[in-house]
Amino acid sequence: MKKFFVELIGTFFLVFTIGVSGNVWAIATVLMAMIYMGGYISGAHYNPAVTVGFIMRGTITVKEGLVYWIAQFSGALIGGLLSIWITGTPKSIGITEGMLAQAIVLELLFTSAMMLVILNVATSPKSKGNQYYGLAISSVVLAGMLTAGPISGAAFNPAVSIGHNIFDLAGHGLDIAVHLATSLAGAALGALGYKLIND
Amino acid sequence: MKKFFVELIGTFFLVFTIGVSGNVWAIATVLMAMIYMGGYISGAHYNPAVTVGFIMRGTITVKEGLVYWIAQFSGALIGGLLSIWITGTPKSIGITEGMLAQAIVLELLFTSAMMLVILNVATSPKSKGNQYYGLAISSVVLAGMLTAGPISGAAFNPAVSIGHNIFDLAGHGLDIAVHLATSLAGAALGALGYKLIND
Amino acid sequence: MKKFFVELIGTFFLVFTIGVSGNVWAIATVLMAMIYMGGYISGAHYNPAVTVGFIMRGTITVKEGLVYWIAQFSGALIGGLLSIWITGTPKSIGITEGMLAQAIVLELLFTSAMMLVILNVATSPKSKGNQYYGLAISSVVLAGMLTAGPISGAAFNPAVSIGHNIFDLAGHGLDIAVHLATSLAGAALGALGYKLIND
Amino acid sequence: MKKFFVELIGTFFLVFTIGVSGNVWAIATVLMAMIYMGGYISGAHYNPAVTVGFIMRGTITVKEGLVYWIAQFSGALIGGLLSIWITGTPKSIGITEGMLAQAIVLELLFTSAMMLVILNVATSPKSKGNQYYGLAISSVVLAGMLTAGPISGAAFNPAVSIGHNIFDLAGHGLDIAVHLATSLAGAALGALGYKLIND
Repeated sequence: MKKFFVELIGTFFLVFTIGVSGNVWAIATVLMAMIYMGGYISGAHYNPAVTVGFIMRGTITVKEGLVYWIAQFSGALIGGLLSIWITGTPKSIGITEGMLAQAIVLELLFTSAMMLVILNVATSPKSKGNQYYGLAISSVVLAGMLTAGPISGAAFNPAVSIGHNIFDLAGHGLDIAVHLATSLAGAALGALGYKLIND
Repeated sequence: MKKFFVELIGTFFLVFTIGVSGNVWAIATVLMAMIYMGGYISGAHYNPAVTVGFIMRGTITVKEGLVYWIAQFSGALIGGLLSIWITGTPKSIGITEGMLAQAIVLELLFTSAMMLVILNVATSPKSKGNQYYGLAISSVVLAGMLTAGPISGAAFNPAVSIGHNIFDLAGHGLDIAVHLATSLAGAALGALGYKLIND
Repeated sequence: MKKFFVELIGTFFLVFTIGVSGNVWAIATVLMAMIYMGGYISGAHYNPAVTVGFIMRGTITVKEGLVYWIAQFSGALIGGLLSIWITGTPKSIGITEGMLAQAIVLELLFTSAMMLVILNVATSPKSKGNQYYGLAISSVVLAGMLTAGPISGAAFNPAVSIGHNIFDLAGHGLDIAVHLATSLAGAALGALGYKLIND
Repeated sequence: MKKFFVELIGTFFLVFTIGVSGNVWAIATVLMAMIYMGGYISGAHYNPAVTVGFIMRGTITVKEGLVYWIAQFSGALIGGLLSIWITGTPKSIGITEGMLAQAIVLELLFTSAMMLVILNVATSPKSKGNQYYGLAISSVVLAGMLTAGPISGAAFNPAVSIGHNIFDLAGHGLDIAVHLATSLAGAALGALGYKLIND
């Protein structure tokens, strides 16, 4: 239950900050703070795709993962709704017209990079006890937002995409589908990468 | 007495930097430096609402808290006055016209996020001995300033609001009242959140 | 083999981010994340000149260095090609017209500073076990990009220069030659500097 | 002799980066990298006023301090000269016309804040073994540059002021005098502050 609330709170602040501010520095720093806030309790996923990667890594069970997903999507929906109340309009996390193939590759690559960083700094026995995990994870997300943002929307996270785009579903069905597919595939790729370079 | 001077010095530099520069990076980095400077002496609150959260957490007594408040408001008033001497005009930490409800929610949410981060990284037995506390705390404040700043003034701290707005009290009575109420309520909410996810 | 894949992956993301984004913050933060990702496996060089410095320092053998170079240049070429597919044009890492002498000095100085920082934070027995290495190394690279970028292109890394400039070789033969020579000389200088201040 | 070279190299890269770039982020990050590079060897002062503070704190002797000063001013002069060769003109670290009193107070306050942070994170037995010292020190310098820069030039360091202004001495005699006096007084004030809150 503690883990449920941590995942809900962390995902809420991530999605809410994206909705109200959109500033990549605000997003990266609130993510870093939330990782250091909840890391020792839930592992600080705040991302259903990351939870998939942790299941593949064997760190948590599918059953526990389901609880995480409910918490993450609940936090995301509350965050999305509340940010609409603040700004008056749904935030669009969208793919630029005519850049679909590039957007898919960018979302896939940066989600896999993020997953690889997360597993190496948060689950490897050889980096156990390190304190840089929050800095390293938020850094790769910031790099991804600066690089992929103008082309793919830089979601890297189904909760982020759905938490905003669901409130303008007519215009964002494709965005949600792409972000969902690429983030799950990217997380799986990152988990495979972890095995490749560690085991 | 050492704690008194640390709280006075830290709050002074925070409020003075806000008054002279207003740059969110200057504010976040001076706060981080002051947290690492005084953390091992006073706990580096520099914020009367944070002191309330620590009292609720049971880390310090109400009596000690009173000494902290005197130090914090003293530092804030000196910082505010000196910044007026530098710039020639009082700094306004104000709520944007027509956004009162949104400002209240933003101040409340980010103060509670800040308090939750502080208690988790600075008082939890499970994160004891960590060195990222200054980075994590200044990060959530930076995210809050970037996100809430244009709407609510982003005080999150009664000493910051009063240290500047008191020198233009006619135009800022409401701002002070809102910042005072939301920062205290936010700190209480953060302290409750800590209990929810830790105990 | 694990080291090979880490060097390939890390150099790929570095060169790819440079090609797609070019934003110095994206570059520095992806580099930091990749250093914390792979540091405990391969040492996280991601730079053939850095590998030369490690050979001079005696940390790895020439034979192992050859494997690193193959991995680094492979990652760089894939990263360069894929970034061209995304943006439609090769990224130019070039020296400003009329600034050749200044560019040589800047590339040389910042590569030697980078190498000196790397050897001191990653190989000195006296700083053993530290966790700031990724932050320190990416910081000196960021400072170098901000300072030398407008004059020399700020490669500090043969894989970065070749991974992009090779796809427009006609216009960038001199750039590659200068970046190659200065980064190797700079790494050697940094390794000598390490001996001067440590042994 | 090792300490001499570390102080010379670190001060050189600080002053050189200021001269060529002037970007506050480049300056803060090169300073942070140089602190982590040389901290375990010389203490990483890179600033004659900081050396005065360490002498007052009793960490080093006056005799050793003299060697540090020679190294720091040598590095600063080489850095200043080489940056003029790159950019074609001496860098001005100057006080804004009509703001002399404000500049004096700002230089004094931020040098004392810097000295207080340095002594607390680098010499206090209670923070011994921490790894955040480079981050904390470069943060307060960054905050100082963003806040005081437009008014006082933000030297906080006699080597920085002299290393640049000496090459345009006619126009910068007053700047050097103010920077020298305020940085020495600020360092002394910071050292007194350390005693006040620690002993």
